[in-house]
Amino acid sequence: MGACTHPGIGACTDPGGGACAAPHYAAGITLDARDHAVELDAGDPLAAFRDEFAIPDERLAYLDGNSLGRPPRAAAGALAAVVAGGWADRLIRSWTEGWMELPLALGDRIGALVGAAPGQAVVADSTTVCFFKAASAALDARPDRREVITDSGNFPTDRYVLESLAHARGLRLRWLDPADPTRGPTAAEVARLAGPQTALVTFTHVDYRSAAILDLDGITRAAHDAGALMLWDLCHSVGAVPVALDRAGADLAVGCTYKYLCGGPGSPAFLYVRAELLEALRQPIWGWLGRRDPFMMGPGYEPATGIRAFLSGTPPVLALTALEAGVDVVERAGIEAIRAKGIALTEHAIALADAWLGEHGVTVASPRDGARRGAHVALAHPDARRLCERLAERDVLADFRAPDVIRLGLSPLTTRFTELWDALAVLRELVREG
Amino acid sequence: MGACTHPGIGACTDPGGGACAAPHYAAGITLDARDHAVELDAGDPLAAFRDEFAIPDERLAYLDGNSLGRPPRAAAGALAAVVAGGWADRLIRSWTEGWMELPLALGDRIGALVGAAPGQAVVADSTTVCFFKAASAALDARPDRREVITDSGNFPTDRYVLESLAHARGLRLRWLDPADPTRGPTAAEVARLAGPQTALVTFTHVDYRSAAILDLDGITRAAHDAGALMLWDLCHSVGAVPVALDRAGADLAVGCTYKYLCGGPGSPAFLYVRAELLEALRQPIWGWLGRRDPFMMGPGYEPATGIRAFLSGTPPVLALTALEAGVDVVERAGIEAIRAKGIALTEHAIALADAWLGEHGVTVASPRDGARRGAHVALAHPDARRLCERLAERDVLADFRAPDVIRLGLSPLTTRFTELWDALAVLRELVREG
Repeated sequence: MGACTHPGIGACTDPGGGACAAPHYAAGITLDARDHAVELDAGDPLAAFRDEFAIPDERLAYLDGNSLGRPPRAAAGALAAVVAGGWADRLIRSWTEGWMELPLALGDRIGALVGAAPGQAVVADSTTVCFFKAASAALDARPDRREVITDSGNFPTDRYVLESLAHARGLRLRWLDPADPTRGPTAAEVARLAGPQTALVTFTHVDYRSAAILDLDGITRAAHDAGALMLWDLCHSVGAVPVALDRAGADLAVGCTYKYLCGGPGSPAFLYVRAELLEALRQPIWGWLGRRDPFMMGPGYEPATGIRAFLSGTPPVLALTALEAGVDVVERAGIEAIRAKGIALTEHAIALADAWLGEHGVTVASPRDGARRGAHVALAHPDARRLCERLAERDVLADFRAPDVIRLGLSPLTTRFTELWDALAVLRELVREG
Repeated sequence: MGACTHPGIGACTDPGGGACAAPHYAAGITLDARDHAVELDAGDPLAAFRDEFAIPDERLAYLDGNSLGRPPRAAAGALAAVVAGGWADRLIRSWTEGWMELPLALGDRIGALVGAAPGQAVVADSTTVCFFKAASAALDARPDRREVITDSGNFPTDRYVLESLAHARGLRLRWLDPADPTRGPTAAEVARLAGPQTALVTFTHVDYRSAAILDLDGITRAAHDAGALMLWDLCHSVGAVPVALDRAGADLAVGCTYKYLCGGPGSPAFLYVRAELLEALRQPIWGWLGRRDPFMMGPGYEPATGIRAFLSGTPPVLALTALEAGVDVVERAGIEAIRAKGIALTEHAIALADAWLGEHGVTVASPRDGARRGAHVALAHPDARRLCERLAERDVLADFRAPDVIRLGLSPLTTRFTELWDALAVLRELVREG
């Protein structure tokens, strides 16, 4: 094998060294030949997983799996089974026959995908509510500090929740504007901004627009160096990019399950609290499911032991059941294999964008270093909104993200190289037409 | 027709007057004859609705539909359809093809069941989270007042949420202990306790243990007379007892949908805000779905117009879809017919308890006046916990509620008079054995 000619399948294992062991494009390829995309699909070790998803329309190029993942085929059967079994047949008995443990059991499984040992994650509520609980708990733990650091490019719901908390508590939000927006906030930038007034630092690990992967370890360290707590939003990471929460010493994390975990529209989110903090941190919505002995319905709230205290209301069993099907597929595929294909897909997208679209005013607004990029690619164009609409008319679904981004979500378990090639060929037609 | 001999089917239309038009027990019945229960089933105008529910085990007496309603048969099909259609086929396009409106559309339909004109209710989040949002919004609207009134017998999650809010805001919880626990708090008792320090008064409309129906109009008036806001928990009312929120001028309400609305385990709750307060009240968890133009993802939270501002995170579409099936059955049956059968069932239960169980130490711990009682009956016995366990062994599911209550949930759409008769015959055997 000669010098590494990425893009190919999998991360380069020997950058510049010429001994990369990852599968590659053949030497001398031209991107105009669709055959190479066909070859990449043929060599894709995850190709068979696409058959585990319900895909009724093979003509559709779906580059939006990072907004709503496709349904695992097993989801419909799992839902039918829980309706006929747990709900219709076992009825109220199901709560003590497993349902009460679902938020924790699924929390442990999702936790394992983001580097969390068991007992530190639960699944319940929306991402927004989980983020509210996690941020509130952190702020309560630093009552004498009056500042929260985040970035102005953070996902809207995170920003809005922080605004509501700042409003309610009279806190100051410090908006970090990264020197390089495509790269996102760095540990050094956080270190410069954080100080004795900083209660909480919070960012999204994989930026929802640029796909930039932030420095989880370094930023967590910078927050801790200032005595602040660190809350990570893993919405665009979980199920796509390996995360090592425990190793980084992250304090809190939340994440969405309807993207790469394919849990279904509006599926419940997860909330992670580092084991060492479980006793000290208290979430703000005290509910019966977070109480010690919930069915005793006793007087006075006493938090349950461990992560269960971060629950509030009754677990959404149907939604958790559908989500289980998604988590199951991701576990079997393996997060490392998913990550390798995510890099290969995004490199393929960038190579095609460079070759086909650059001359028509499209720029790549994602990191070019695969190691610093999640599983989507942002293409910037002044006419992005209209292009997304025209793509949809041509059976190519991508996301417009204001003001000028066409976001290509490349969900490794379901997106084919040919699907991507075909989609960008349509985009090439559209930008050529102007 | 002679003097009214209730219990029978339907509320007495001429109490004491002898001209009651509701169907009745035949004169001179003996409760020991199961035939009368058979007749009541035969004359039940709602009998056919039972066939609309998945009931795999006809031997089971299920007196727990007020904890988890049985699944409407349509739920499984609706789930399969939304997985195959909205999720698998339309994918992300579904958000603009109806999903974004689901929480509001379903809110309007459930609102109609509790006397709310459209535009005042949404469905989202757990009951606990909805209660937190509603109570927080009320407290924010009365920043100079330091007290909250509720009763110590209120449902645990309501009490715990109030504790968390009192803890976070330094408020005082004033626990109303009603003179007559079986009747619950009265308007006069609220009027005595409420004053210029009262920010919020909140009770559960139908008590989760005794089934006592509180005076919605009078208590709301007493709260308003003191300048406080009134928040009603309708968990044990909605789908069982008509409620007139608008007419009463209630400010806020929340309710559970997995009981009489048969929405499925952990289905999302609803939250009502009186139209006149929609601009003034602000919920505490500002999320992207409650923002004006959520998909613009703009800087700075600006609440959406109307009740939509009470949303926070992404709507749980699968759960909302299952819930729709339940709401549909309730709408077709009609809340007045459901209420009439609820009274008849509970009267039947009380008559049987009096005749069979009283001599064995069982007392009726629910109001004897049908007009003041929801759709369940509390029977008190010192050995209630063990009796509930032994009932379950005999295929009779009822709920134990500490310290001494056997709670019989009599879900009008699915509970038969014979089912109730048979269940109480088993309980009679058990208490006779001692």
